[in-house]
Amino acid sequence: MKPRFEKLEQIKSSQAVDAFLITSSASIKYLCGFFYNFETGPSPFQLIPAALFVVPPGRANLIIADNESGQLADIDPGIAIHKYGSYSYEKPLAYSAGFLGKLSEVLRLHNAGKMRIGIESGSIPHSVTAHISMQYSKFGFEDITMELARRRMIKDADELSFIRAAARLCDMGQESVLKYAKPGISEIELFTLVRGDMDKAAGQRVPMMADLVCGYRTFEGGGNPSSAEIQPGDLILSDLTPCLNGYWGDTCNTVAVGKASPEQVSHFNLVRDALDNGIDAVKPGARACDIDSLLRKELSKAGRYAHHSGHGVGLAYHEEPRIVPYNEMILRPGMVIALEPAIYANGYGIRLEHMVVVNEHGCEKISLFEHRLK
Amino acid sequence: MKPRFEKLEQIKSSQAVDAFLITSSASIKYLCGFFYNFETGPSPFQLIPAALFVVPPGRANLIIADNESGQLADIDPGIAIHKYGSYSYEKPLAYSAGFLGKLSEVLRLHNAGKMRIGIESGSIPHSVTAHISMQYSKFGFEDITMELARRRMIKDADELSFIRAAARLCDMGQESVLKYAKPGISEIELFTLVRGDMDKAAGQRVPMMADLVCGYRTFEGGGNPSSAEIQPGDLILSDLTPCLNGYWGDTCNTVAVGKASPEQVSHFNLVRDALDNGIDAVKPGARACDIDSLLRKELSKAGRYAHHSGHGVGLAYHEEPRIVPYNEMILRPGMVIALEPAIYANGYGIRLEHMVVVNEHGCEKISLFEHRLK
Repeated sequence: MKPRFEKLEQIKSSQAVDAFLITSSASIKYLCGFFYNFETGPSPFQLIPAALFVVPPGRANLIIADNESGQLADIDPGIAIHKYGSYSYEKPLAYSAGFLGKLSEVLRLHNAGKMRIGIESGSIPHSVTAHISMQYSKFGFEDITMELARRRMIKDADELSFIRAAARLCDMGQESVLKYAKPGISEIELFTLVRGDMDKAAGQRVPMMADLVCGYRTFEGGGNPSSAEIQPGDLILSDLTPCLNGYWGDTCNTVAVGKASPEQVSHFNLVRDALDNGIDAVKPGARACDIDSLLRKELSKAGRYAHHSGHGVGLAYHEEPRIVPYNEMILRPGMVIALEPAIYANGYGIRLEHMVVVNEHGCEKISLFEHRLK
Repeated sequence: MKPRFEKLEQIKSSQAVDAFLITSSASIKYLCGFFYNFETGPSPFQLIPAALFVVPPGRANLIIADNESGQLADIDPGIAIHKYGSYSYEKPLAYSAGFLGKLSEVLRLHNAGKMRIGIESGSIPHSVTAHISMQYSKFGFEDITMELARRRMIKDADELSFIRAAARLCDMGQESVLKYAKPGISEIELFTLVRGDMDKAAGQRVPMMADLVCGYRTFEGGGNPSSAEIQPGDLILSDLTPCLNGYWGDTCNTVAVGKASPEQVSHFNLVRDALDNGIDAVKPGARACDIDSLLRKELSKAGRYAHHSGHGVGLAYHEEPRIVPYNEMILRPGMVIALEPAIYANGYGIRLEHMVVVNEHGCEKISLFEHRLK
């Protein structure tokens, strides 16, 4: 992919920094296309899996451990790759030294002695900034997390194609829930079947967050699938949030196992209508809080509605614009939003969620499955 | 569980620190029993999920976001829980402020003005230490990561019960591989079936690392399951590494789909004998490098053997004692070791792995399945 370093040039001017040391998985993917999977937690082999050092408008440097091949093939050839030896059975593990040594080399190459460096201060470990500060006492750090997050709100065509692929995976997952949901299997067994279809379609393991709950747990709004067994007459709330090559999808459906009660059917239709109205209202110039209010006013008559009406989606599963009462942010083309109105009442919950991208005139639905109880 | 703060008291003396601010998932679990799942990556809602502040021998403080309930029930009632409000739809997201504010309160409570604080400098974000340094210019930080890791090598009875449970899950997973492996399904489909059995047995989603590969990929030693289809006559290398409630299990088997060649059978038997010999040699007083050498000498005659012979397992899937040529570390009772000899030759790989715990006289096998080609 084409790197997005012009974003850093903008921040360089606005924040008066000279260079950037980027360490979060999301921002590294955003800026240069390299993605590393986070599913198995922090590595026991190295301090951090990757870092990107950029002195705009110059050449960018990706520092990675040699065992983090990840999506190197997707990277623009203009980016200098600096690999350091990570784990080997032939010599003692250099948990920090490999990365820090390579970082020092790169800093020296750029005469980084007195630079002011933009960092993501919540993602960069203390040992990295402490190491730099020890070498260069005149270094300054500036947290540019919010600057970068703000620029990530508007998705370009390349990003949209990633997000559409993740939404496709959600569509398939929701069809699988409808296909497999039946009494006698547990939430976790249903989850295995659904995630299995999604992994198979993706041809790879896909990190996934999921609320997949039945019965009374739907009233509580969600949670991880458990060994609770699906009972005849249960509703199943299925909120599937997979991360495909770094970009998240996020949709929710509510399914009836057996016959839904007339009230459940009526609530389902209420939520679906509210979602449709919400989608109709999403357009450039609309305020996030007004979309929230539209859904909240309608649905809180019918039951508890104690969460957001939606949120941005992209390299994080939850980001701006948040569709919440206090947020006066103006929607703009290129924003991707998941709207998820709900009714929680009388011991059950119904939540329906679609993803849309704001375009010039309104918005386009990018999750395509049809919400239905069965 | 009973907390393990006596470990911190030992480090307090040896490293001359006054207090500890512990931030890694593994160490928090180790010290106080609280475990948070890391499978979906960094949270977009808060800086860090949890931190433990301890001034030995005084009361310990666990600072957590209110949406990180995790395994709070397992925690010793002597630990003070400090919750801060995390995500709410009613007010703007305070990504860092909630945690840092609560941390400041706790530090004030302990008159922490001039303390020297033990931290895990690879896991604690810059923004936390920068925040503390700004409030208290006389603070000092000392990296105690290695001190803690060293003490974690010897497992107590409570830890062993966690690790045995994870090993049980591995046993079941290996039986599932034998049950489901067949031509025509892909690596990722096999993985879904195997992980599904393991999740069902655990009654919850279990974070898992897995090499699950067929055919030529076994020669390469592993990798994530892909859409490659299992062919008649393939070997399948199945290295399953689940994390159950914070503790990892780790075993490997190699399975034949169809008839293994006489050479493959003979190599399988060689590796199995080497593993048996290795297990016989694990005892208190033995050196890690000698166990490695025993396996390496035997097996490198038959093929490539370019990795460790084993490693410690516990709150990390890979830790000391590493069973490698350079490591003269003496084995001691309570160490848990996964031994994984292998032969990679002629386009296929065979690796067999068991977990053992060193006891007073030798060691006890804690993964119980029987390695077999089918």
